Amino acid sequence: MTRSTPLRSAAVIAVGSELLGSTRLDTNSLFVSERLCSLGIELRSKSVVGDSRTELAAHLRHALERVDAVVLTGGLGPTDDDVTREVVADVLGRPLEEDPAIVAHIQERFRRRGLTMPEVNRRQAQVPRGAVVLANPLGTAPGLLIEHERGVIVLLPGPPRELQPMLDGLVAGALAERASAERIYRTSLFVVGRSESHVEERVQPIYSSWLRAIPPIETTVLATPGQIELHLSVRTADPTLAADTLASARRQLREALAPDVYSEDGRPLEEIVGRLLQERGLTIAAAESCTGGLLLSRLTDVPGSSAYVLGGVVAYANELKTAFANVPADLIDRHGAVSEPVAAAMAEGIRERTGAAVGIGVTGVAGPGGGTPQKPVGMVVLAAVLPGAAARVRTVNLPGGRNQIKFNATQAALDLVRRGLLASA
Amino acid sequence: MTRSTPLRSAAVIAVGSELLGSTRLDTNSLFVSERLCSLGIELRSKSVVGDSRTELAAHLRHALERVDAVVLTGGLGPTDDDVTREVVADVLGRPLEEDPAIVAHIQERFRRRGLTMPEVNRRQAQVPRGAVVLANPLGTAPGLLIEHERGVIVLLPGPPRELQPMLDGLVAGALAERASAERIYRTSLFVVGRSESHVEERVQPIYSSWLRAIPPIETTVLATPGQIELHLSVRTADPTLAADTLASARRQLREALAPDVYSEDGRPLEEIVGRLLQERGLTIAAAESCTGGLLLSRLTDVPGSSAYVLGGVVAYANELKTAFANVPADLIDRHGAVSEPVAAAMAEGIRERTGAAVGIGVTGVAGPGGGTPQKPVGMVVLAAVLPGAAARVRTVNLPGGRNQIKFNATQAALDLVRRGLLASA
Repeated sequence: MTRSTPLRSAAVIAVGSELLGSTRLDTNSLFVSERLCSLGIELRSKSVVGDSRTELAAHLRHALERVDAVVLTGGLGPTDDDVTREVVADVLGRPLEEDPAIVAHIQERFRRRGLTMPEVNRRQAQVPRGAVVLANPLGTAPGLLIEHERGVIVLLPGPPRELQPMLDGLVAGALAERASAERIYRTSLFVVGRSESHVEERVQPIYSSWLRAIPPIETTVLATPGQIELHLSVRTADPTLAADTLASARRQLREALAPDVYSEDGRPLEEIVGRLLQERGLTIAAAESCTGGLLLSRLTDVPGSSAYVLGGVVAYANELKTAFANVPADLIDRHGAVSEPVAAAMAEGIRERTGAAVGIGVTGVAGPGGGTPQKPVGMVVLAAVLPGAAARVRTVNLPGGRNQIKFNATQAALDLVRRGLLASA
Repeated sequence: MTRSTPLRSAAVIAVGSELLGSTRLDTNSLFVSERLCSLGIELRSKSVVGDSRTELAAHLRHALERVDAVVLTGGLGPTDDDVTREVVADVLGRPLEEDPAIVAHIQERFRRRGLTMPEVNRRQAQVPRGAVVLANPLGTAPGLLIEHERGVIVLLPGPPRELQPMLDGLVAGALAERASAERIYRTSLFVVGRSESHVEERVQPIYSSWLRAIPPIETTVLATPGQIELHLSVRTADPTLAADTLASARRQLREALAPDVYSEDGRPLEEIVGRLLQERGLTIAAAESCTGGLLLSRLTDVPGSSAYVLGGVVAYANELKTAFANVPADLIDRHGAVSEPVAAAMAEGIRERTGAAVGIGVTGVAGPGGGTPQKPVGMVVLAAVLPGAAARVRTVNLPGGRNQIKFNATQAALDLVRRGLLASA
């Protein structure tokens, strides 16, 4: 690639043995990914290697074969463990030279703290020939930008507060000049209450119709706990075209899937339900059995939820279903605690007892024990009572372990309320 | 490498375009790293690639050149995006063949939920020739173990609850057979109710005394939400020596820190409290305000908790504190909802109303709004009433955002009960 060929692809390599253990994750790559994406530079891979010259050299060579921009984070400290500068110089076949301005900067930092620079810090002033030095006002390790025949290599210090302003400077300056006019624009839709395969079947014909769209729309379908995510992106130099394309794509998907799409901006279901309640001036209360408080906890995770969440009860013991949610004891005797009449009575009862506009009842078998052939683990009955409407009751069979069943039951309960609120609009 | 050469080095490759964006991290690699380490297999690198055949193939080839064991996570779903199986078959030059047992397993999973298997799920039954199929009782995607001339490749599904038991099975079986005799043995202690610096000061003299121990003990102090973790490890080929060394180390730390050490096996605080309650034949109920149901949800996360958790109330609205937990309205008027008398009354009241042996009350300011100079965001008042004892009441000031305050408040409430139960033993 020549200097005039725009940068389109990137790889991030994080350096540091501590990032290979079982307790710490490299989080810098999230920031780097976002900033590169804003320039239309696609992150193709990210890797973590320890403080090993051999491993880092192998990964750097491998990245240089595949992408235009390689961003290395960490390994710029003063000790023997900090190998990034040396490995980059080695792989590019360039000598390391001491930069007197960096030495002066580091000496000055130590002097300000009343200290003398240890000799070992001189290593941080070693620069591969031809590199542009990126000032680090917040630490001793400068960053480096190196142009080579196939693209660029960027070396950034590991601490996020040093890395982030440095990368921001590059994204506003040198990297923006080297990027194409094309940028990547993204949008996402979040679907609840449907299986991945169901969603896949609905969206596949639409995705196929986009194959020859200009600009092409990249699509992903992702199943995450309790929901399906649809991610779309387009790459173009025209921001208006991007906005129009994605808006039209979103509309097509929304129409094909409505009312299963609950969010187009990543806000969680409890927040969507909260907003619908607030728009309609309604309050909510819940009587929970198998979800054990998780439903009310999610509803109250939303800042400001005290405006519409009154509270409710966790009625694990059947006596509490009667004492706190007015469920007649003989109803439980006749139908069992996990049954549609009991769920409906819980929703009605908690609504009466709290004076809430909307009442929810959830009862089920979270497992691992307690299942029967008629009422197996994962069977959950949900009920929602909204103003002026009959109770909406649903029985679902949820897969997974206890915590997944609990979570998916709250997801189904929130969705039942959401659909009820939309239907009553 | 031949089949008898032990596996010593590994690389993890996580597959999924969503892991290359700016919002999600691959966390499976932490678990994989820990388990491989327990077999003395060193993780040399970890990488994330998108759902791209070319990228995954390049990374897999690169890993195969450098390490004995390659662990691939994700990309085993039923859709076109799920490329892991195909790429592995391709790189190894082996054909993919449909495994009828896998098809039957997936069909059965759908049948149990009253559904028919979509045709697309057949892709999950495609297996590279010679692969050992790893059963996945918790999902549709089986794992795969593939021996090749230079080592092994392991394919694991992305969802942690499916991946973890599958890898545990391999670590106990096929991978253990292939590892060297020298293992890394670990133990951990979990401390609640103390600051990191307090714990540091207590353990530092003990850590120093271990510097010349044989085998050497590696130590880490790690602050995680609501607790401090102490991790110890030794590397040796002698399991008895490892067990003795770690048991003695644990004893020293426990004595220096008791009763702040709540767990030595990673069981969470809600499970420890549950076990104490069961041992004493006691039941529990809670009245929650600012934690919004999270405390009861955590208590009921424990399988079998219905034996001792009766339930409780989420009294976000003050009226519910009175209606459901017998808190006198004038007590709230006099002291405010966030006050020691109200927390104690909530604990007493829910105990009376439910007939539970132990009652908990939690009230506080979770933020971000609602703080005052006298009662700032993060101020939480906890109360626990145990049989035959006066209410234990504590006021804490918790740092962080809304969710962190909620979680740490439940942690403090559970710890208050734990200490109460230990004191009354």
